[in-house]
Amino acid sequence: MMAAMDFSPAPATQALVDAIRAFMAAEVLPHDAEWLQQPFDELPLEPLRDHVRAQGWWAPSLPRAWGGLGLDLVDLALVGEVLGQSPFGHYLFGCQAPDAGNMELLLAFGTPTQQERFLRPVAEGRQRGCFAMTEPDTPGSNPTQLACRARREGDHFVLDGRKWFATGADGAAYALVMAVTNPDAPPHQRASVFLVPLPAPGLTLVRNIPIMGHGGQGWASHGELQFDGVQAELLGEEGAGFMLGQARLGPGRIHHCMRWLGVCERAFALMAARARGRSLTADKTLADQPLLQAAAAALRARIDAARLLVLHTAWTIEKQGFKEARTQVSLIKFHVAQLLQDVVDQAVQVHGALGLTSDTVLAYFYAHERGARIYDGPDEVHLLAAGKQVLR
Amino acid sequence: MMAAMDFSPAPATQALVDAIRAFMAAEVLPHDAEWLQQPFDELPLEPLRDHVRAQGWWAPSLPRAWGGLGLDLVDLALVGEVLGQSPFGHYLFGCQAPDAGNMELLLAFGTPTQQERFLRPVAEGRQRGCFAMTEPDTPGSNPTQLACRARREGDHFVLDGRKWFATGADGAAYALVMAVTNPDAPPHQRASVFLVPLPAPGLTLVRNIPIMGHGGQGWASHGELQFDGVQAELLGEEGAGFMLGQARLGPGRIHHCMRWLGVCERAFALMAARARGRSLTADKTLADQPLLQAAAAALRARIDAARLLVLHTAWTIEKQGFKEARTQVSLIKFHVAQLLQDVVDQAVQVHGALGLTSDTVLAYFYAHERGARIYDGPDEVHLLAAGKQVLR
Amino acid sequence: MMAAMDFSPAPATQALVDAIRAFMAAEVLPHDAEWLQQPFDELPLEPLRDHVRAQGWWAPSLPRAWGGLGLDLVDLALVGEVLGQSPFGHYLFGCQAPDAGNMELLLAFGTPTQQERFLRPVAEGRQRGCFAMTEPDTPGSNPTQLACRARREGDHFVLDGRKWFATGADGAAYALVMAVTNPDAPPHQRASVFLVPLPAPGLTLVRNIPIMGHGGQGWASHGELQFDGVQAELLGEEGAGFMLGQARLGPGRIHHCMRWLGVCERAFALMAARARGRSLTADKTLADQPLLQAAAAALRARIDAARLLVLHTAWTIEKQGFKEARTQVSLIKFHVAQLLQDVVDQAVQVHGALGLTSDTVLAYFYAHERGARIYDGPDEVHLLAAGKQVLR
Amino acid sequence: MMAAMDFSPAPATQALVDAIRAFMAAEVLPHDAEWLQQPFDELPLEPLRDHVRAQGWWAPSLPRAWGGLGLDLVDLALVGEVLGQSPFGHYLFGCQAPDAGNMELLLAFGTPTQQERFLRPVAEGRQRGCFAMTEPDTPGSNPTQLACRARREGDHFVLDGRKWFATGADGAAYALVMAVTNPDAPPHQRASVFLVPLPAPGLTLVRNIPIMGHGGQGWASHGELQFDGVQAELLGEEGAGFMLGQARLGPGRIHHCMRWLGVCERAFALMAARARGRSLTADKTLADQPLLQAAAAALRARIDAARLLVLHTAWTIEKQGFKEARTQVSLIKFHVAQLLQDVVDQAVQVHGALGLTSDTVLAYFYAHERGARIYDGPDEVHLLAAGKQVLR
Repeated sequence: MMAAMDFSPAPATQALVDAIRAFMAAEVLPHDAEWLQQPFDELPLEPLRDHVRAQGWWAPSLPRAWGGLGLDLVDLALVGEVLGQSPFGHYLFGCQAPDAGNMELLLAFGTPTQQERFLRPVAEGRQRGCFAMTEPDTPGSNPTQLACRARREGDHFVLDGRKWFATGADGAAYALVMAVTNPDAPPHQRASVFLVPLPAPGLTLVRNIPIMGHGGQGWASHGELQFDGVQAELLGEEGAGFMLGQARLGPGRIHHCMRWLGVCERAFALMAARARGRSLTADKTLADQPLLQAAAAALRARIDAARLLVLHTAWTIEKQGFKEARTQVSLIKFHVAQLLQDVVDQAVQVHGALGLTSDTVLAYFYAHERGARIYDGPDEVHLLAAGKQVLR
Repeated sequence: MMAAMDFSPAPATQALVDAIRAFMAAEVLPHDAEWLQQPFDELPLEPLRDHVRAQGWWAPSLPRAWGGLGLDLVDLALVGEVLGQSPFGHYLFGCQAPDAGNMELLLAFGTPTQQERFLRPVAEGRQRGCFAMTEPDTPGSNPTQLACRARREGDHFVLDGRKWFATGADGAAYALVMAVTNPDAPPHQRASVFLVPLPAPGLTLVRNIPIMGHGGQGWASHGELQFDGVQAELLGEEGAGFMLGQARLGPGRIHHCMRWLGVCERAFALMAARARGRSLTADKTLADQPLLQAAAAALRARIDAARLLVLHTAWTIEKQGFKEARTQVSLIKFHVAQLLQDVVDQAVQVHGALGLTSDTVLAYFYAHERGARIYDGPDEVHLLAAGKQVLR
Repeated sequence: MMAAMDFSPAPATQALVDAIRAFMAAEVLPHDAEWLQQPFDELPLEPLRDHVRAQGWWAPSLPRAWGGLGLDLVDLALVGEVLGQSPFGHYLFGCQAPDAGNMELLLAFGTPTQQERFLRPVAEGRQRGCFAMTEPDTPGSNPTQLACRARREGDHFVLDGRKWFATGADGAAYALVMAVTNPDAPPHQRASVFLVPLPAPGLTLVRNIPIMGHGGQGWASHGELQFDGVQAELLGEEGAGFMLGQARLGPGRIHHCMRWLGVCERAFALMAARARGRSLTADKTLADQPLLQAAAAALRARIDAARLLVLHTAWTIEKQGFKEARTQVSLIKFHVAQLLQDVVDQAVQVHGALGLTSDTVLAYFYAHERGARIYDGPDEVHLLAAGKQVLR
Repeated sequence: MMAAMDFSPAPATQALVDAIRAFMAAEVLPHDAEWLQQPFDELPLEPLRDHVRAQGWWAPSLPRAWGGLGLDLVDLALVGEVLGQSPFGHYLFGCQAPDAGNMELLLAFGTPTQQERFLRPVAEGRQRGCFAMTEPDTPGSNPTQLACRARREGDHFVLDGRKWFATGADGAAYALVMAVTNPDAPPHQRASVFLVPLPAPGLTLVRNIPIMGHGGQGWASHGELQFDGVQAELLGEEGAGFMLGQARLGPGRIHHCMRWLGVCERAFALMAARARGRSLTADKTLADQPLLQAAAAALRARIDAARLLVLHTAWTIEKQGFKEARTQVSLIKFHVAQLLQDVVDQAVQVHGALGLTSDTVLAYFYAHERGARIYDGPDEVHLLAAGKQVLR
């Protein structure tokens, strides 16, 4: 009998996912709302990372040769969903943004020396890096229009310009920086990617940008960076910045989407628990309210469908390569980002005033995951890009 | 290496689906808008049915022993999607509603005599039947409240009452009728299912109900039936009506959903073709309009996701049985029905005034598939039923 | 005390509206679903028109000098809403499309001779006209791209081309036709408007276009017209076609919007009545269903708000002229058209299978008012036109 | 000529609104994003309040006898809309929540002694109060189920229980507290309202509840309060708590809705400015993007319509009393709250990453005005309450 459609993960994957899910439920989910109220560098995350390492779960996105699990994109997606239930999940497993993406770039394009210096310590969880691409005054959706400049000076480059939303710049050991090396080249060959060890003369962390009022700290922050004559070395080829950026964003969108689906599941579970636990009268709870039942069913259908769509996209990338899946990737980007917002919003609504407070993780999701519809290409960019394709 | 998620159909299924798709594209889709304007009994459908039989495609939903293809539910879903592109697809392949469902019931619950008399001629495409459950004056969503009565009289039963929306009653060779045998029994044991050969004394086809203005004819009609002392024989056990109804509706919803996805694909393809073909200026077509691109992308994501959701549900029924998939079935019912409406609506909009005319198949879909959110349980019933489950 | 906001109509207006509402409720609404099933020329509409005349309600949109009520735009809007409850309301009061708009054009731009010949008999309800602008193969939203040509020949013009969606062309006594007189002029001066007495040599009514399956008849039809060398006389200036079209469409959109709000009210009333009348259990009706209550409340808020928006727009046109209200007019056009669709859709849903049948007027609204989002500028055109303005 | 619909405010009102708008534009809107980043008690608000007093604008909601402007509800709504553009508007004009509502209650139900003690200093802007009704463990939407108890002890009462979301409890000079005096009474006569001068023995401000991460300070905070044997005096009659609560909430919802419309206008203006100012290419800005144009137009229509709906409701209350407007009040509550969320969300989206930061006021609106769909009756409560009425 020939193979046919099969929606089950491989048994080994399922076992891994189940074990991680149990760990998250026991050690992370009960605490993360509280952690979000505390300074990042005071959180008890290192013992948990040690536990993750001890279980052999560390760095699911890295090859085995670099100490990771070497999962393919589909299995990685399934793990990413479980980790995404908490803002701390990916960090605890050594696959947080922006480091996971940085490591992919260094693996693919770094020299052995660069890999030892910048990749190794992050792969082992001893350091963090940051990624500085977005600029305050140029359209973030269009990397061909960057203002930050890099000029060659002897055997290195010198960077000038301003970047922002460099996640985790506060305390990072290095920065990956996208800057224009040749403004007169064809648009997609203007920029290059650079490595800057931190701290660096001429490089100032202007501020941790307050997001919905919070500046954050350490990994849990987004830095605004001023570059004034900062020395940098090239990663990959000169003029390859756009290509490297795309290489980073492609699977990155799968990772984001599955993390967002983890957020959806967490929010849905909190919503359902609240609904069952909130008495309205002696014998009725919120879960008996038809309006909530209907809203929950509608979201459940959308979550389940979106999850399959993302897994299908990951599977397409594995089978046929990223290029074949490009339109699919755009579709999941805006589709799941909107779903995330809708699920979290409904969960907040069901919690009433409590949903607005920091007593649950929902308010954090509500405020901080609003970015999902903006970063890595805002909805509008993906809608138009995908729309052109699907009308052909 | 162990098996893992696989989104590909088996090669044989894929080949079958591809062949049917080519047939539909060549012989059906170019003509169906025109056919919809003609009386049903004047349509050139029989030669096409012969061609289908000759290709060995007849009756995909029937077991091989009854001359069908014996497909499992997932493969049947894939075929159903392709057929659903046209209002005539399922009819041409001998798996149209209500006959496909009637045949399932007769296969499962009919005596050999009943099967020979009522199933055989329909399985071979020589006759049609109808299914009379819904009533004008009782809530269609609640089969425990039927008004139609059946009383035993000697070795047979006698039916009194009124039914409507009996698809294809006009010209049917028999009717399956749901009627109350014991109004005092527990709600789910009040009704039974009956077989009535047609024509029958006391049974009047009051009218082919005008749907959005059209009464239709033959299979393409919905009858209102008056039963005044009509002789009938029992199908299955007395009091088993509700159970038989459920047995019929379960996989039936998979069939509907995949058919609706076929409608979505047809409407989407017409929309894309119109967009590409309609010039706005010398060098721009509708397909260059960002509003349309965005709408198309958003629908594309929803269609692709919903399709996977339905296939996953079919797969779950195959692997674990209908009971395990009951909530999933409710989710797909309302989710895909709404999607269908939205896709068709957008396709109409893109066609402008043309979309309102009968010059394309879209106006038919717009008017006649509006029922998708109503029959087999309206949205509200499934939203609440599924909502209760997913909040647990 | 200075004047201030006042949401009350003048007492005389209110009295007129109340009287017409009572007439509609007694003489029209109970019958119109049935009328829609019958040929237009067999309907008992003339006695009702006589009654309307006898009451002094005839032709609310015409000046008193022409036998009308001479209402200002706000009062006309209030009357139009009440008439809009039925597909026959405006016809019974002598202010149906396209005649109301045609009469406005003839009043403003016709010579006394033209007025006597074309306006007088329509104003008195003895004849009907039609308006032929839209073409099957040019973008309806862009009157600068018409294909229909008019060439001067001696003292008259000769028309060639094809038009469609000429409402009521079947049986009309004349046609107003938009055609290109000077294809090389600036876009907005290319076209002119012509008068053609019917029947006319060279002018063929190709068909009454089937809309959602119905060709219709008489006033209740939309004609496709072929012009082959048809003699015509100019209305207004040569090259003034675009200007005349705009003059016609401006207040016309107020009329449409208020008529649609009448449809909304009718659909809402039918929905509420059905909800109250449909028993679910011994002591519950559909009106006790929270999902329906919530849907009804949400629509009620939207209807009430939209109604004020349209009245405000009419008031702005009265006070400040059409030019000042141009963006407002675009806003109400797409906003109310979408609302109309949503209200009717919900009313259909509440009626279940009955909503799909021609037993109520809802199915007609569902199918035939779908055009609201298309004619007189599709949603997309108004969204973009208004969007440009409101972002300034 | 008889009066008729008039959408213009009285000239004096218009002049007042224009003057306040100019003041807000010059002195408040340029600074409020920055103020939101600073501790409340360090803000330069007192000089601005003095300026407001000097202009004769102080306390628009208070009668002239108490130093206010004595505006009727419609005019108050128009002023409230302008103030609502900034989170600080109402505070600067002495009509901020919860003080405006408290003052209404004290005016209507306070003894002269209570008015001198609790109303006078707040009316003059020297003190603030708070309102403690909502409880963490009882359904906020149902004031008949409060847990907080008040027992009579001699000539005063003693309160025990917990309250939260008491806005501005931090630093308040008194609290209005809703507590149950007679748990066995009919539901709507169980509770009473009490006055507690602050600080009070037994009354603890447990925390300023972190909302989306911020505890806030002073007026800009929401307190959680623990009552352990706190002495209190009655406001109004014993058992009148529910009635007083309703009296407070009725016009309060008009105030909220018009404030939210002010938020909508501010967000819309920021969005439009950003769209015009953000270059995409050499000759295109975001304002040239059709997707944004369409979104802006759709929101503009909704805002304009909703504004008229709220003004109409205020006008109905003025003309016919609150009881006649009860359903209207429910309609505007959920309708405008949802609109507010949608407008702010779109404005955030247009700002991209900037919209998530505290560099504009949008992120504050996004996070802190999410409560609009929850407080004073969540959407669901008003949808169902209004739905029952409109289906009658």
